[in-house]
Amino acid sequence: MNGGITNIEQPLINSDQLYLQQLAQIKTFIFDVDGVYTNGQVLVTDSGEFYRMVDIKDGYATTRAVKSGFRLIIISGGRSEGIRMRFERLGVTEVFLGIENKLEVFEELQRTTGLDPSKTAYMGDDMPDLQVMQKVGLPVCPSDAVPEIKSICSYVSPYPGGGGCVRDILEKALKLQGLWL
Amino acid sequence: MNGGITNIEQPLINSDQLYLQQLAQIKTFIFDVDGVYTNGQVLVTDSGEFYRMVDIKDGYATTRAVKSGFRLIIISGGRSEGIRMRFERLGVTEVFLGIENKLEVFEELQRTTGLDPSKTAYMGDDMPDLQVMQKVGLPVCPSDAVPEIKSICSYVSPYPGGGGCVRDILEKALKLQGLWL
Amino acid sequence: MNGGITNIEQPLINSDQLYLQQLAQIKTFIFDVDGVYTNGQVLVTDSGEFYRMVDIKDGYATTRAVKSGFRLIIISGGRSEGIRMRFERLGVTEVFLGIENKLEVFEELQRTTGLDPSKTAYMGDDMPDLQVMQKVGLPVCPSDAVPEIKSICSYVSPYPGGGGCVRDILEKALKLQGLWL
Amino acid sequence: MNGGITNIEQPLINSDQLYLQQLAQIKTFIFDVDGVYTNGQVLVTDSGEFYRMVDIKDGYATTRAVKSGFRLIIISGGRSEGIRMRFERLGVTEVFLGIENKLEVFEELQRTTGLDPSKTAYMGDDMPDLQVMQKVGLPVCPSDAVPEIKSICSYVSPYPGGGGCVRDILEKALKLQGLWL
Repeated sequence: MNGGITNIEQPLINSDQLYLQQLAQIKTFIFDVDGVYTNGQVLVTDSGEFYRMVDIKDGYATTRAVKSGFRLIIISGGRSEGIRMRFERLGVTEVFLGIENKLEVFEELQRTTGLDPSKTAYMGDDMPDLQVMQKVGLPVCPSDAVPEIKSICSYVSPYPGGGGCVRDILEKALKLQGLWL
Repeated sequence: MNGGITNIEQPLINSDQLYLQQLAQIKTFIFDVDGVYTNGQVLVTDSGEFYRMVDIKDGYATTRAVKSGFRLIIISGGRSEGIRMRFERLGVTEVFLGIENKLEVFEELQRTTGLDPSKTAYMGDDMPDLQVMQKVGLPVCPSDAVPEIKSICSYVSPYPGGGGCVRDILEKALKLQGLWL
Repeated sequence: MNGGITNIEQPLINSDQLYLQQLAQIKTFIFDVDGVYTNGQVLVTDSGEFYRMVDIKDGYATTRAVKSGFRLIIISGGRSEGIRMRFERLGVTEVFLGIENKLEVFEELQRTTGLDPSKTAYMGDDMPDLQVMQKVGLPVCPSDAVPEIKSICSYVSPYPGGGGCVRDILEKALKLQGLWL
Repeated sequence: MNGGITNIEQPLINSDQLYLQQLAQIKTFIFDVDGVYTNGQVLVTDSGEFYRMVDIKDGYATTRAVKSGFRLIIISGGRSEGIRMRFERLGVTEVFLGIENKLEVFEELQRTTGLDPSKTAYMGDDMPDLQVMQKVGLPVCPSDAVPEIKSICSYVSPYPGGGGCVRDILEKALKLQGLWL
């Protein structure tokens, strides 16, 4: 559709730059927990509780993002009260746990809080995230997300779930917006 | 034993296709726990309890398999009540824990529930699984199973115990039978 | 000391065969815990308890060795009651925990139980094991032992602490002595 | 600034030797906990407690350093009482937990205990360590520290946080000062 001459005059934009251009504008981030803030594994105690491993470096970036005015939202199928307390200590107030249908929560947030999907990033790793990730402006994922998720993402982090993918995306956004140091 | 001409007219079937042909028919899966749903490690508490790490991606496939009508059976030498609760939450009702002789449980299931070994897959990783695995139609194992187990398996998953081998076999079966999406 | 002609008539023996020749005779094994039965890491709880990760495959070989009449002895600087219970369930009765000076325990075992150092294997990974390991006939270690330990070992397992080194040495001994299957 | 002739007469000193020359003089070590004594991950329990994995080999070097007369100081943003107990058992008495501003603690130690920054090593891994590390004579870090920290360090250990970086620096210092064996 583009004529040759017009093309020559436009700056060359590769796919990496496109995603960075978006990230420079985004203030709202939705995160899955298992496989994103964690490596997807849970430790099962004798009484059936689930303990999860999270990363302090991700936590640091989370606090910095909240203090810099970003809106962070957690939507997880898991139900751990310990995880809720963890996020509260990091300053994250919108924490939705035990969610079977993530799309419902997402659409409710649109209706009641003015969440703008086109200006939202979502980091997820598995099938329960797929539908919501198709609605947001910037779907991103860890390096070890399932193929169905990777194939629809604007950016696949080089870091796996629980191994720095949250730090990666938040630090990039904060740096692009001059809020890191 | 096969004559040349007959052979030429048959489609070429490699060993991979053979296992996939079987998997397309199988609705019954038996799983060991340690080294299959976990990486084989247990966390020992001060009071001697065993905590185990399981993977959320395996759990997702397990639930999907149960909801799709597959019969899932757990036979483990371990005794964790937390693991029993985990499987119940995933919808698995046939959970045999603390089993010293797995063959006995298997033969009891044949007698009392009509379990058909030829139409059953079994995923195990170590010597206590060996005898049962020699009885089923489709013995499969994680990438880090012991050599004795690997040598009798129709399929060795590229994923290790606790690292996606359960997801791998169940997702493949569900996709082959049109039940994944 | 050997004359040339005598040498020619002897079979060629490399260092691997030497260690296997010893292992075929050994019925007594001493093991360190941290860095041998575990990867050397401990999980510290809020009340200061230490939880340790052990491997089910190591446990299987331990039970098999005990049932086959091997003498297994545990000498550890750590103090976990959970670890003591773990070894008791595996059938190991000589478990020495909280030991600051391992050589003292070893020499006491020589005096009181007739332990023969020349017919004993010891698997350790760090400096507190060094002195005892210099006394036994067959010092062995995991792949990730410290250099001081590796340098005095007859055999360095290809498997790391907590990752199969115990299984490796016990399975080899049981197979050499016709006790594995 | 240096004339050519003077340069020629000086022995060639590479950056590695410079850091070893410093380390041979240093008796005071400050350590961060998360990402240094641990791999940066915390296990979140259902009641919101944080459990951390530490390494026995690091612990051995810590005890040896204390017994050899080194001064060890812990400054951590985390608050675990279990971690405090762990360090007390290792003989470390100056343990500062739950610290939001590490520079404040550092300057207080200068004022009240005569801590000499030029004769102090500090091992940290992330942004909250940056300011203090710029004040000490020998800033060092694990292999997986963030780029901002690595770029100011005199020595980057080949070992990651929780995987031997503490052992590495303390063992090196003890050996240089003839205190290891």
